[in-house]
Amino acid sequence: MLKFTVSKSEIEKKISIASSAIGSRTVDPILQCLLFKPLNGHINIYATDLQTSVISQVQVGEYEGNDAFAVDAELVDDIVRNLPEDEFIFEYSNGKLLVRSGKAKYNITTVSDIERFPIVDTDESGIKFSVETSILEEMLDKVSFCASSESAMRALNGVYWEIHGGFLRLVASDGYRLGLAEQKLNLENEFDFIIALKSIKELEKLLSSTTEPVINITYDHSLVSFNAGDVTTIVRTVEETFPDYKRVLPKAFKTRVILNLDDFSEALKRVMVISKRGNEKVQLKITDDLMELTSQSSDFGEAVESIPITKDGEDLIVNFNPKFLNEPLKHIDEKEIEFNFVDNLSPLQINPRNVGGYIYIVLPVRA
Amino acid sequence: MLKFTVSKSEIEKKISIASSAIGSRTVDPILQCLLFKPLNGHINIYATDLQTSVISQVQVGEYEGNDAFAVDAELVDDIVRNLPEDEFIFEYSNGKLLVRSGKAKYNITTVSDIERFPIVDTDESGIKFSVETSILEEMLDKVSFCASSESAMRALNGVYWEIHGGFLRLVASDGYRLGLAEQKLNLENEFDFIIALKSIKELEKLLSSTTEPVINITYDHSLVSFNAGDVTTIVRTVEETFPDYKRVLPKAFKTRVILNLDDFSEALKRVMVISKRGNEKVQLKITDDLMELTSQSSDFGEAVESIPITKDGEDLIVNFNPKFLNEPLKHIDEKEIEFNFVDNLSPLQINPRNVGGYIYIVLPVRA
Repeated sequence: MLKFTVSKSEIEKKISIASSAIGSRTVDPILQCLLFKPLNGHINIYATDLQTSVISQVQVGEYEGNDAFAVDAELVDDIVRNLPEDEFIFEYSNGKLLVRSGKAKYNITTVSDIERFPIVDTDESGIKFSVETSILEEMLDKVSFCASSESAMRALNGVYWEIHGGFLRLVASDGYRLGLAEQKLNLENEFDFIIALKSIKELEKLLSSTTEPVINITYDHSLVSFNAGDVTTIVRTVEETFPDYKRVLPKAFKTRVILNLDDFSEALKRVMVISKRGNEKVQLKITDDLMELTSQSSDFGEAVESIPITKDGEDLIVNFNPKFLNEPLKHIDEKEIEFNFVDNLSPLQINPRNVGGYIYIVLPVRA
Repeated sequence: MLKFTVSKSEIEKKISIASSAIGSRTVDPILQCLLFKPLNGHINIYATDLQTSVISQVQVGEYEGNDAFAVDAELVDDIVRNLPEDEFIFEYSNGKLLVRSGKAKYNITTVSDIERFPIVDTDESGIKFSVETSILEEMLDKVSFCASSESAMRALNGVYWEIHGGFLRLVASDGYRLGLAEQKLNLENEFDFIIALKSIKELEKLLSSTTEPVINITYDHSLVSFNAGDVTTIVRTVEETFPDYKRVLPKAFKTRVILNLDDFSEALKRVMVISKRGNEKVQLKITDDLMELTSQSSDFGEAVESIPITKDGEDLIVNFNPKFLNEPLKHIDEKEIEFNFVDNLSPLQINPRNVGGYIYIVLPVRA
């Protein structure tokens, strides 16, 4: 038996965040369930797809009984979202869960073999550190879009975390472009790990849904847990070695261009109207105070745009996949950006002009 | 040669509404185009999928030259949406269209054999009548969701228009339910026609996008045109006979129930959480002042709800597909509705309690 009363907003939020860990193509029915289990005066909700696990603590006040039960996650999520009243009564006994609110009454079948439910948690002995929620959210936003979702190299299908020399550095790359964000960290230990993109998305959900200002992280080798108050997301690391990204970072720039991010973004969007119907290429022609953007399509014609720039160094004509130039712009919240070129075949480095901590590297394409 | 200057808002709106007539699976490239053609001091934009045609008149002030040109609809739509400045210059000559705005410049390839473009219009001799835009929009909203999108009977894949006895009556049915909306009309002629669902959707776009208070309709047998100021939508009628819908309308009701639409809608939504995972059935149990709604699923359990009602006539237990009860509720904007039953096997009539002009008929399912 287990009986508790809970507010709609509390249970709805906690079920929703736990449900997000559940895989969409799960074969084992137990992995489609949420496990409700009383622990130290709270009800914990557990969910896992074996790769990512969520433990979400529900504030219920008093509860009666001490049994655990497991119930289909989509069903219980659907029920609590549709119920009208502010207060719900959950009452579990003999394999049946009764959910009541106002005049509505659900009599739900639960899953029987709940001892099979895999509860995942990190060890108390892991290395602990913490990062401000908003900073971690911003760092992930700036790099995770660079990760591949389908590379044959499993190390590239995720985000690399390097804790080294008093810095936390996040790096992601699909082989054509690379994003790197770094932040000072008060920690003497040095270690690194890779988290798969699917787990990164779960972590991003945790960061965006919490009101906690700080995330407490525990590194336990094959597992990393991220705790934000009532909710803990635990991810399994990818057992691969990340490529040596430092060799990719360009040096000895010959052309530096300073430009207004919005000007460039708007001009690029307009030439992309043609490039997406053509060869997916944009030519940048850089002269003293002007950048000309040109795209061509053999079927539809040509688009030409130009924007004012400040240039330092040599003139340059260079071609890019416009998508790879466009994407990082959405993740930079600065008025002015720098384009740092070596030549028209070497990687271009894009970074905000006035703040450090973020660089984006992208390979040109041939004309 | 043809040259004109036009404001962004005007050309964007007129291209957008014309583009909507273009089919998504067109094989003939000329049917993917918009035809721009000067006529009596305006530029007309023509678009058609042969079934539905749109003529949209662009306000351009002066124009130079008198040539027509055709250009890929998606491309020109994309261009005008992305251009920044308020004023665009269109300049067509020798098969090339130059579109300019601020520093942006597009040099577009046009289609060569424009004499193949099929311009469709109604004859001046057709029967003319007019309906208030908001009334026609509401009537279509109340019936068109009942039409089938895949019936083997082509007559059911559209909306039936009956102009008879001083009334305009719109009827649609998929064989399981039927919607009927009627409105007084000052017209002595009597005629009827069917418009296919795809054309109805185009007509609905016209109604929702126009600010004209009245729609002028011309019935020309195989074609019906709907004119709203600058924009005219012309549809080809379906050459089929609509079934005799009057035989379906139930008579001699034995149970009348009056209920609050929102109460019923909310209760239904909650039992549907179970029915959609079960046998897609909801049981209504009607006693003196209560309606009990029950749904079952062999895998997941049971949901029970009840709402207060006012009943006139016999008690009743009757089953429905909950989707077919839920759908009309979204199209009725009244606080109270009536359920008029003959028995638990005959069609149920649902209508607003206090206003006429709309009825919805739905067949029960067996228990």
